[in-house]
Amino acid sequence: METTTRLLLPEVRQALRDEPETLVALTEEMHPADLADIAVALEPELAQKFVGVLPIMVGARILEMCDEDKRAELFRGLAESDRGWALLVTEAMTADDRADLYAELPPALQASLLAEIAAEESRDIRLLLSYPEDSAGALLTTDFVGLPATATASEAIELVRANAEEMETIYQAYAVDKHGTLLGVVSLRDLVTTPADRTIDEIMNPNIVTINVDADQEEAARLMSKYDLMALPVVDRNHHIAGIITFDDVLDVVEEEATEDAHKIGAVDPLETSYIQTPIRQLVQARAPWLIALFIGVMATENVLEHYSDGSRMMLMLMWFVPLIISTGGNAGSQSATLIIRAIAVGKLSPKDNMNILKREFIVGAMLGLIIAGVGMLRVLATGSTRSYSMVMAISCSLMAVVMLGALLGSGVPLLLRRLRIDPAVSSTPFIASMVDIGGLIIYFEIAKLFF
Amino acid sequence: METTTRLLLPEVRQALRDEPETLVALTEEMHPADLADIAVALEPELAQKFVGVLPIMVGARILEMCDEDKRAELFRGLAESDRGWALLVTEAMTADDRADLYAELPPALQASLLAEIAAEESRDIRLLLSYPEDSAGALLTTDFVGLPATATASEAIELVRANAEEMETIYQAYAVDKHGTLLGVVSLRDLVTTPADRTIDEIMNPNIVTINVDADQEEAARLMSKYDLMALPVVDRNHHIAGIITFDDVLDVVEEEATEDAHKIGAVDPLETSYIQTPIRQLVQARAPWLIALFIGVMATENVLEHYSDGSRMMLMLMWFVPLIISTGGNAGSQSATLIIRAIAVGKLSPKDNMNILKREFIVGAMLGLIIAGVGMLRVLATGSTRSYSMVMAISCSLMAVVMLGALLGSGVPLLLRRLRIDPAVSSTPFIASMVDIGGLIIYFEIAKLFF
Repeated sequence: METTTRLLLPEVRQALRDEPETLVALTEEMHPADLADIAVALEPELAQKFVGVLPIMVGARILEMCDEDKRAELFRGLAESDRGWALLVTEAMTADDRADLYAELPPALQASLLAEIAAEESRDIRLLLSYPEDSAGALLTTDFVGLPATATASEAIELVRANAEEMETIYQAYAVDKHGTLLGVVSLRDLVTTPADRTIDEIMNPNIVTINVDADQEEAARLMSKYDLMALPVVDRNHHIAGIITFDDVLDVVEEEATEDAHKIGAVDPLETSYIQTPIRQLVQARAPWLIALFIGVMATENVLEHYSDGSRMMLMLMWFVPLIISTGGNAGSQSATLIIRAIAVGKLSPKDNMNILKREFIVGAMLGLIIAGVGMLRVLATGSTRSYSMVMAISCSLMAVVMLGALLGSGVPLLLRRLRIDPAVSSTPFIASMVDIGGLIIYFEIAKLFF
Repeated sequence: METTTRLLLPEVRQALRDEPETLVALTEEMHPADLADIAVALEPELAQKFVGVLPIMVGARILEMCDEDKRAELFRGLAESDRGWALLVTEAMTADDRADLYAELPPALQASLLAEIAAEESRDIRLLLSYPEDSAGALLTTDFVGLPATATASEAIELVRANAEEMETIYQAYAVDKHGTLLGVVSLRDLVTTPADRTIDEIMNPNIVTINVDADQEEAARLMSKYDLMALPVVDRNHHIAGIITFDDVLDVVEEEATEDAHKIGAVDPLETSYIQTPIRQLVQARAPWLIALFIGVMATENVLEHYSDGSRMMLMLMWFVPLIISTGGNAGSQSATLIIRAIAVGKLSPKDNMNILKREFIVGAMLGLIIAGVGMLRVLATGSTRSYSMVMAISCSLMAVVMLGALLGSGVPLLLRRLRIDPAVSSTPFIASMVDIGGLIIYFEIAKLFF
């Protein structure tokens, strides 16, 4: 929340109690996004009162700007007390946000509202609700400018002008034939800079970047980012235009996908809602399976340790270094996994880089391993410890080896997963660390055996 | 790279060898972003030949679309062999990309080119180069439409039309007084839908979201995402407009910042270039300090283990479970840290949530701890192991405790860092895991003492 909004909050609260109608003037110059911040910060009942007292158009904008979590709650509360308001606001909202809102409503309320609103809007919402979650279809808005290819530039500008009010963007218009087949794109920039009598099919760019309704929203974000698109047309199998995705929706997608990846790398199932809005039960559900799986995996460490235990004093002393060695290997593995998984996610690594990456990680791992082994040796020498020469050598060599193991597993496992068409992000850093734990212990004791 | 582009690559290679001039026709209908993909995929020499043979305007678009890493290399090679080309392309590029390109050139080449290009462009590049890296200033373009507040809508449309060619966007225009002070914003949508004789100061919206030139680029991305802005005006201390940031640049920023955060969470210094472009020496530099710091930190585990060692058989058996216990605690800590750091990064947690978060993590940690302790107990029972009752209890209770410790440190440390105004992302998951390693060992042996 911006500071100015925060400062206004007490005043809004006061007005809601004393004279709600003054709020219209108080908030007139505020951006709907800031009004949405206020609605989110208020207690549910006050928030409803706040949104309800403002003009319908402002209420619609606020709902468009609200966090998904809060929006449904706010709308539901108001819809229950003032049905007429709910219907008017539904009509005033943009097509994509409206459908998102309806998707979050309880089925009974959704159905009864859909039965009451105008047939056209109702059909539109039902259509958008039919697209799978996280698909390009679920992001699109049907409020776009379609133009006949035979229109002239000046006719087109008139058409744009006449429909501007209801459109999500008027800066890109789409030439379609009478079946709705997408023929080309023409920007308002082209329309205003071209001679008035040229026709759309002369001006339009027929080489359009499009996306299929069923494609993943991540692909939509990638295309819009790559081609610097303000709007991306979404088409069905017959190249009929279903709607457009606008740049503001795609910013949210990029952020959402980055959060999902971060969660996966941290061994948490991606959450549906923001952390603070997620009920505790769901947090446990998102974490427990991974924690249990990792726990069962790491159980093998006990067997490894038991296997190598021979009751000697030397072996006991070696045990003291176990956490140091395995956690250092795990850290190196986490670093590699983070670098590789993120580079894959942003599309900077092509499969033909695989061998190159493994070679690089081998070298980086060897250099890091040498450094760590050196630091470890220095430390033992500095403390004038009584450790034997063999001990120092065994530990240093093991450190070198586990850091290399970490670098190779941390890079190799994500690359292997991609090859198997599994999302590399599921090879979470804890997962890599656990693999290094087991492998690192075996390496450590095998190396120790060589020195004793 | 899109599949169609990949398929075209051999044909481009062939043409470059045999008859380069045919490339102009071959690539005429392709998007500059796809041409940039080709340039990046070609060997440096062929890439230079490819870009050099295309029209200047196309070359400029390709450079704008290229990865930062590749762009400077490509331009440098061409500038050395064809000075005239370099000067023309510089003038044809958009102001922001041009300045970014010049920032990456060797100082001598940069200086000599700046001396040769037109004074206006040279001044513009110098100005943009003067803004600090990762600041709003460094993202801005000076190619925006400024309008006198006294102009009428139809005059303004004429002005926009006349300057459209050179502008980054014409969909948002900015009303300025004769000193360059920003007065308001007016969209092309407003201009085309309003009566032709209304003046800008009647139509414009004076409540503008702006950002200071010195502000962080992350703040620019946050504002544009929050207010759904296609362009964000950047102002200096006197509210003079310095330029605008456009939506396409901000998509890159969101992705870049997510990558930076991911690297920090994985205990790697954020890289300046993409992973595959980063020289091995820099990869080692980005990783070694963190690895060493964590290594030195975890050294304490050896002292803890030595301290508790009494040479008994029981103590030896307890040692076998050390990796299992500390890695499970570390995993729980990684999960919490990931959730909290990401939630802070996307602005979903306000400082007043702190107590609430710790309470939630306490409960989640307790539930996860119970689950893991239960699984651990089942496993011991299932294997019909000879472990004593005390042993099973000590291990189960320790598991419960370290999972809770992980959840509390994983959430508490990032929150504490934010409070101290340090980026929470530096409390990397390996850092949390290392703290849990040390704490977990002490808890484990203290609990064991209670049972023996």
